[in-house]
Amino acid sequence: MSGPLNVIGRSPQQVDALEKVLGRATFAADISLPRMLHGAVARSPLAHATIRNIDLSAALRVKGVRAVVCGRDVPYRYNLPLRDQPFLAIDRVRYVGEPVAAVAAEDLDAAREAASLIRVEYEELPAVLDPAQAMLSGAPLLHPEFNKYWRDEKLFDPIPNSNVLSHFKLRKGDVEAGFAEADEIFEGTYTSQAFNHGAIEPHAVVAQVELAGQMTLWSCQQSPWFAADDLAIALGWPVHRIRVVTPFIGGGFGAKHGLKAEPPAVALALKTGGRPVKLVMSREEVFTALGVRGAVTVKLRTGVKRDGRLVARTAEVIWDTGAYADVGPLLCRNGSYSSTGPYRIPNQSIDGYCVYTNKVVTSAFRSYGTMEMSFAYESHMDEIARGLQMDPVQIRRQNLLQDGDETATGETPKAVGLVPTLTACASAMEWDKPKAPGRGRAIVSTAKSSVAPSGSSSFIQMNDDGTLNVMCSTTEMGQGSRTVMTQLAAEAAGARFEDVHLIASDTAVTPPDRSTSSSRSTFNMGNAIVRAAGDAREQILDKASELLEEPRENLDVRDSAVFVRKDSNRFCSFAQLAGVRPGSNFGPIVGRGSFVPADTTAFNVKTGEGRRITAFWLYSCQGVELEVDPDTGKITLHRVVSAHDTGRTLNPVACEGQIEGGAAIGCSTALFEDLVLDRDGKVLNPNFLDYRMATSCDIPPIESILIEVPHPEGPYGAKGIGEGPTTGIAAAIANAVEDAIGVRITDLPITPEKILRALGKLPPATP
Amino acid sequence: MSGPLNVIGRSPQQVDALEKVLGRATFAADISLPRMLHGAVARSPLAHATIRNIDLSAALRVKGVRAVVCGRDVPYRYNLPLRDQPFLAIDRVRYVGEPVAAVAAEDLDAAREAASLIRVEYEELPAVLDPAQAMLSGAPLLHPEFNKYWRDEKLFDPIPNSNVLSHFKLRKGDVEAGFAEADEIFEGTYTSQAFNHGAIEPHAVVAQVELAGQMTLWSCQQSPWFAADDLAIALGWPVHRIRVVTPFIGGGFGAKHGLKAEPPAVALALKTGGRPVKLVMSREEVFTALGVRGAVTVKLRTGVKRDGRLVARTAEVIWDTGAYADVGPLLCRNGSYSSTGPYRIPNQSIDGYCVYTNKVVTSAFRSYGTMEMSFAYESHMDEIARGLQMDPVQIRRQNLLQDGDETATGETPKAVGLVPTLTACASAMEWDKPKAPGRGRAIVSTAKSSVAPSGSSSFIQMNDDGTLNVMCSTTEMGQGSRTVMTQLAAEAAGARFEDVHLIASDTAVTPPDRSTSSSRSTFNMGNAIVRAAGDAREQILDKASELLEEPRENLDVRDSAVFVRKDSNRFCSFAQLAGVRPGSNFGPIVGRGSFVPADTTAFNVKTGEGRRITAFWLYSCQGVELEVDPDTGKITLHRVVSAHDTGRTLNPVACEGQIEGGAAIGCSTALFEDLVLDRDGKVLNPNFLDYRMATSCDIPPIESILIEVPHPEGPYGAKGIGEGPTTGIAAAIANAVEDAIGVRITDLPITPEKILRALGKLPPATP
Repeated sequence: MSGPLNVIGRSPQQVDALEKVLGRATFAADISLPRMLHGAVARSPLAHATIRNIDLSAALRVKGVRAVVCGRDVPYRYNLPLRDQPFLAIDRVRYVGEPVAAVAAEDLDAAREAASLIRVEYEELPAVLDPAQAMLSGAPLLHPEFNKYWRDEKLFDPIPNSNVLSHFKLRKGDVEAGFAEADEIFEGTYTSQAFNHGAIEPHAVVAQVELAGQMTLWSCQQSPWFAADDLAIALGWPVHRIRVVTPFIGGGFGAKHGLKAEPPAVALALKTGGRPVKLVMSREEVFTALGVRGAVTVKLRTGVKRDGRLVARTAEVIWDTGAYADVGPLLCRNGSYSSTGPYRIPNQSIDGYCVYTNKVVTSAFRSYGTMEMSFAYESHMDEIARGLQMDPVQIRRQNLLQDGDETATGETPKAVGLVPTLTACASAMEWDKPKAPGRGRAIVSTAKSSVAPSGSSSFIQMNDDGTLNVMCSTTEMGQGSRTVMTQLAAEAAGARFEDVHLIASDTAVTPPDRSTSSSRSTFNMGNAIVRAAGDAREQILDKASELLEEPRENLDVRDSAVFVRKDSNRFCSFAQLAGVRPGSNFGPIVGRGSFVPADTTAFNVKTGEGRRITAFWLYSCQGVELEVDPDTGKITLHRVVSAHDTGRTLNPVACEGQIEGGAAIGCSTALFEDLVLDRDGKVLNPNFLDYRMATSCDIPPIESILIEVPHPEGPYGAKGIGEGPTTGIAAAIANAVEDAIGVRITDLPITPEKILRALGKLPPATP
Repeated sequence: MSGPLNVIGRSPQQVDALEKVLGRATFAADISLPRMLHGAVARSPLAHATIRNIDLSAALRVKGVRAVVCGRDVPYRYNLPLRDQPFLAIDRVRYVGEPVAAVAAEDLDAAREAASLIRVEYEELPAVLDPAQAMLSGAPLLHPEFNKYWRDEKLFDPIPNSNVLSHFKLRKGDVEAGFAEADEIFEGTYTSQAFNHGAIEPHAVVAQVELAGQMTLWSCQQSPWFAADDLAIALGWPVHRIRVVTPFIGGGFGAKHGLKAEPPAVALALKTGGRPVKLVMSREEVFTALGVRGAVTVKLRTGVKRDGRLVARTAEVIWDTGAYADVGPLLCRNGSYSSTGPYRIPNQSIDGYCVYTNKVVTSAFRSYGTMEMSFAYESHMDEIARGLQMDPVQIRRQNLLQDGDETATGETPKAVGLVPTLTACASAMEWDKPKAPGRGRAIVSTAKSSVAPSGSSSFIQMNDDGTLNVMCSTTEMGQGSRTVMTQLAAEAAGARFEDVHLIASDTAVTPPDRSTSSSRSTFNMGNAIVRAAGDAREQILDKASELLEEPRENLDVRDSAVFVRKDSNRFCSFAQLAGVRPGSNFGPIVGRGSFVPADTTAFNVKTGEGRRITAFWLYSCQGVELEVDPDTGKITLHRVVSAHDTGRTLNPVACEGQIEGGAAIGCSTALFEDLVLDRDGKVLNPNFLDYRMATSCDIPPIESILIEVPHPEGPYGAKGIGEGPTTGIAAAIANAVEDAIGVRITDLPITPEKILRALGKLPPATP
């Protein structure tokens, strides 16, 4: 990896731009197979009920119907850390929208008609929608059979006979002594709402059982290996008999990580005698039944010295996981330990509770808890600064973690880019100058971890003409991974960018990778690809040395050729070294690489300790400048400045794209988005008319700042960037609102109504 | 590779048996894609003509027609060693059945109707059908523009301004001196007829151009990498933009090696705006236009000592390649140098001529010339034995190559299994006992080379549950390669057979391999897979050593687990080592292997010398016992004994299957099959009614004998076996006929009519 870099650090056209612009990119809903059937799902109208009987007879009589299934046909449960979720409801429904039965028919109309004719006798049970109430003793229990579920005991601790499926505990230092030492103590409670991921593409899957015990899914699945694994365990099949092929994905944001639309499709495919079944979800189904960013309440109490030093913190975090676990226990863990924020706090006590409620299941969402936590801890930080009459930037700079400092979990991260991002953001905001009249502004810092330990792997093959195919299971969902992975492979192999072709993920052929999530692909898969390309490069050098009759050490690899260093007229192209064409004396060149971050360890579930619980940290700093109309409560964003420590910027335009998209989500969810349920647990706004998302008119141009603090283990020093940009924005807006008009909003979204109430211009809300 | 073998040497159920038996195996004709069009081809009715004009207008007016193309739309030429063949005829047609234009339409009827309405104005040229006539000066030249074609000059030498596209020359020792030294000189001319490969599945292909410069073919293609490469060069595209996916193949036998049905499909797909085009050939098209085993005439002259020692040979071989090169030059080379047979002959002079004629193109056929050569040299050998009054087995035993002997090309092969197979076959035939009254019998020996140098490669990935996926580009066409490759991977990785899953060939993801041809897969791909599995096994041992806290040298790998050698209660399963599941500290296990036979060298095209021109040799011996009805000329085969040196038998039942199938081809083509053309070059029997193939009633149970002479470079000592069984059978039958009734037939097939003529019971044939 010596010498100048040729491919990384540049921004070539995205490799899939043409396909997407021309409408030729294939998404799961575009897939059509011979003899394919179309599926529809019958869903629960009730939030909590026992199923007395299911009558499928009317559905079966509809012309064109080929299969009708319900829970008793597929008595399997999934979810990797806690296997609590049935393919189709068994005995009991736990939220409005839960799949109860499914139909496969020759056409979609017949499938939908038949699904509407499925008659279910329910006996209603008391439902609980509020996690705080669900935690009370005597609350209706969603999963009385909890102890029968298989769970990974290493990962989380439930509270027995309750709706709390995970209680995360972290204890660090002596929190009592810390508070005793403090000059001031601050307290606050911060609430983040539930919202939808809002991906343009609704979930879609085609499932086909080719033979008994052999199945292929074409699915909009962010994490094909993770999904294949979960399904294989649920069905009791070896993983190699389940093939998950991922076409392009029209936005994921976490909603497409793990099994989502797949279970009902699989339930049908098991009954159609080998005919494939296609299931495309409606927008309403996506809103009501395919995962949600769940609501979170964070209670913080912090002891500080008069000079601004943080000395103690307690945090109590309640995570609403909805009716099933999904990622809940891990989200509760990773989110809760992040409630410290990116700060040195010697004494801490953190309790996170992951709680079942009769609502749609909480799934992963871009930043995995850090949006919610950063709204809390960065709102809280400004309240502390205000209380101490300190400058918000100054108090942050004073407490931010630096190299050598220890995190809440006992880790000592390397290459910490917090102060550099803060400095750059403050400079861009001209923080040292007075703010414009009538405006409010704020700057916040955040840190987000990335799942570890977790593995990735890649293969690289040299084609007959010297071009390279790179196989990797990272899925492309708009984040630009195909382009960046292509750059990394080209750089590490010494190939031209245009000579490298990335192969889309398919668990039968693209090798194992834990997931496309957690901002981990550039770091983990990037490293695997660099290793695979390096392995191929070694073979290239060996053969070139033989062909050119020069020792390896005299050779340079660049631009898809090997040159004699002191005589660049002597060279051989990669094509001359490819070993398949008739007459070639060389064997084919094939590289492989796998990666798992060194020394990463699983958590101690009892103490919250972990020597190295993340592959790397995303460090960022967000600045906001805004105006609030005191008559209407309307907020106008004037500036959003977003500074990120990329480790090393592999592709500037792609990084800026990630920042702009993430910041837009941050703004939209801070100001507008809110999934509203009625008292019976029914979603009232399951469509893009009633559910408000920001448009480009609501958001100013995002000012991206890329800071490079090279990570010693990152590919060429790079780290992930995907999730950082969503974090902190809500706190920055809340802080800037207070800076502008002196009122603080602690529950999201920050609507004009809440501002007018806070200003006393509207009466308080009735609960 | 130490320790007892667990998986190889056994005959597990073929991994694809269930799919095939249940009719679920997908063949190219089963593929159906959204918006797929159906293609049809318009073909030349003339053997040789200039194209004056092509009028597509009537075809374009047919309802449902979406594209009509002719040669001017696709001015590309293919064939790897000599790029002489157009996608669709350009300016000139050279055989009856040559594709001239093609149509893609919404349905097959419309496509066929439109194809029939294409009006071509031809100006007929004199045609030449007989290669001997085609070699004469003044014969009509098929390719006056020959010098404009790109060709690989290393591989063959044409005779300028003639129809001889390749003149192969081999000179060894001093042939004049050899004949001078001889006590007796024998001469003979032996003719093998043209016949069809007779695969059950007619050629089928679906082609789709996804974007400009990006294409996928789903094709019944034996050698996907070879085909992709040829197409890429023809079109001037990088290979990574051409993906060849091979589903199951319903029989190949060489007819599906290289571009066959693909060019017209590609020509159409380039014009349909991204819509896929399916082209399924009719049986008549397969017979007339998709390749043939071409006719060959061999003239041998051999000098022998009175004691039976062979001292000199000249051979003149004329190969009819039809209208285009295809594999002609290489077939001429490999076939011609094999005219020595498996014998020590110190002085040799071989001339092979590959000749254009106005007939369907000769393609590869199972044994690549050795069927024809062995018919010649083993008929000849019995004539010599008879002349010298020696026992046919004795004279063979005396002259057969053994370890340390030099072949015609100057190679000294290792592990020569000729004498062992002869001994075993003679023993099974009870050669030392008198033959049964009224019967004839014969024993023949053959040797067949395998293409070299040529490379193969493989990837192996470990899935989350510890099962393995093996990626290899060897295509399954009934020969059982998937099962044998699975066995090799399981054995070398230490996995259970049922834990290994083979991935079908697809050039985008299964790594490079020259071809599925030349009996090379077990040897070349087998070695690549053993290396890939060994690479994975090393990673498995490293991780197991860490997990079990034992040094690697104390560990054993077997049955998909790693055991502590001295305490088999301490072990870890492969699943525990797989590095993707959340919480795993291990990175994914990914193996890679590539192979090219060591020290193999290209031929010297001027002298025919090659230090090592084959990866290995197939050695076999065939015995036949038969009866001839002197009144009808009908031959009844009583016994066919077929002994083969497998190197090591990886799967006994699979080897026997190859032998039985190959011997059946040998018998059928020796006795029945014959592609008959009229004087205008039109095939008269292009269907299975008029073209006679043997049925199971015509062939006795084949007695297979497997001899193991381990090859030092073979995987576990194994070699290929696919082509040996077709060789020698025709000579054995001809020799046994002479043994039975005293007449010798030297032109195939050996029909009752020819026997009656030889017996003088019918008048001689009129030419």
